[in-house]
Amino acid sequence: MSTNIDIQESSKDSKGKAVLVAAPARAGGWKKGIAIIDFILRLGAVAAALGAAASMGMSDQTLPFFTQFFQFEASYDSFTAFQFFVITMAIVAGYLVLSLPFSIVAIIRPHATGPRLFLIILDTVFLTLAAASASAAASIVYLAHNGNQDTNWLAICNQFGDFCAQTSGAVVSSFIAVVVLVLLVVMSALAIGKH
Amino acid sequence: MSTNIDIQESSKDSKGKAVLVAAPARAGGWKKGIAIIDFILRLGAVAAALGAAASMGMSDQTLPFFTQFFQFEASYDSFTAFQFFVITMAIVAGYLVLSLPFSIVAIIRPHATGPRLFLIILDTVFLTLAAASASAAASIVYLAHNGNQDTNWLAICNQFGDFCAQTSGAVVSSFIAVVVLVLLVVMSALAIGKH
Repeated sequence: MSTNIDIQESSKDSKGKAVLVAAPARAGGWKKGIAIIDFILRLGAVAAALGAAASMGMSDQTLPFFTQFFQFEASYDSFTAFQFFVITMAIVAGYLVLSLPFSIVAIIRPHATGPRLFLIILDTVFLTLAAASASAAASIVYLAHNGNQDTNWLAICNQFGDFCAQTSGAVVSSFIAVVVLVLLVVMSALAIGKH
Repeated sequence: MSTNIDIQESSKDSKGKAVLVAAPARAGGWKKGIAIIDFILRLGAVAAALGAAASMGMSDQTLPFFTQFFQFEASYDSFTAFQFFVITMAIVAGYLVLSLPFSIVAIIRPHATGPRLFLIILDTVFLTLAAASASAAASIVYLAHNGNQDTNWLAICNQFGDFCAQTSGAVVSSFIAVVVLVLLVVMSALAIGKH
């Protein structure tokens, strides 16, 4: 009787082990897929951030005429928020390029949480930086388009149409980078959390 | 002999079980500490976000005199970015209050990744929202303080000193909430990632 019970228990044990080994193997494929999507999205974010920085950095319009109240030239140098935008977007793009090797490590080793933890923490920091600079520039672009009656700040987009179009494009591009960074953080969290 | 062997094996089993039970218990204490800090920081973030929304929402200054160029009154209604700020900070504060029960669940069950995953994903989304509205308002506050010569936008803080002080305080408070949210995301990532 006692040996019989022992055999049953050991077979139970091996069953439990088999399930434990099988589960991570299946999850690995799923995590590898997440890591590949992570890499592709990261490339897209690099393009969006670089495009935003370049588009804003090259925004410069000189008017062929001048009035009593307006300057001849508008460039990103005119606004502190736009300077901040160019610098921050360049830094974010640089970080995203440097993060690509870690994303590749996550593809090769889908189970390693180390690179994913490293990426999710730095992604969060640079997401905050990107969101801050994108919306600081967006609020200036909004003012440039609409002005503000209460403070007598006049809209400048009637005069500087090309400048406004270019900076608006840069802001849109930066918000694409922000959305992609949010997706990257959420995906990393899911990949780390689900075992 | 056979019974003897049986006894040895069972003692081995119980040892193995004891180790298995002990290891998570130690890790659990570490995770419980993180969860408690998470709860306290969350309370601080609620206070910072509520303070920011209230301070900005009540910013309103009427001047005792008027000139040809300036209005009599300045309030957060004057700027779209400030309206966005008040709405967003109220939403973030509301979310943080609603997230407190999940933080408590994480304290009671330090091993459950479900509530932490839920929190880290929503924290990331609301962190982005908070950072965006904080810096949009910050760029307007900067303009109000310094003006912009190239576009002929005059600084209004000479006239509306109290208004500027109050909105500046709200922006500082919102950035405190942003920093706390970044810490919350990083801590959640560490708690999920380290087993």
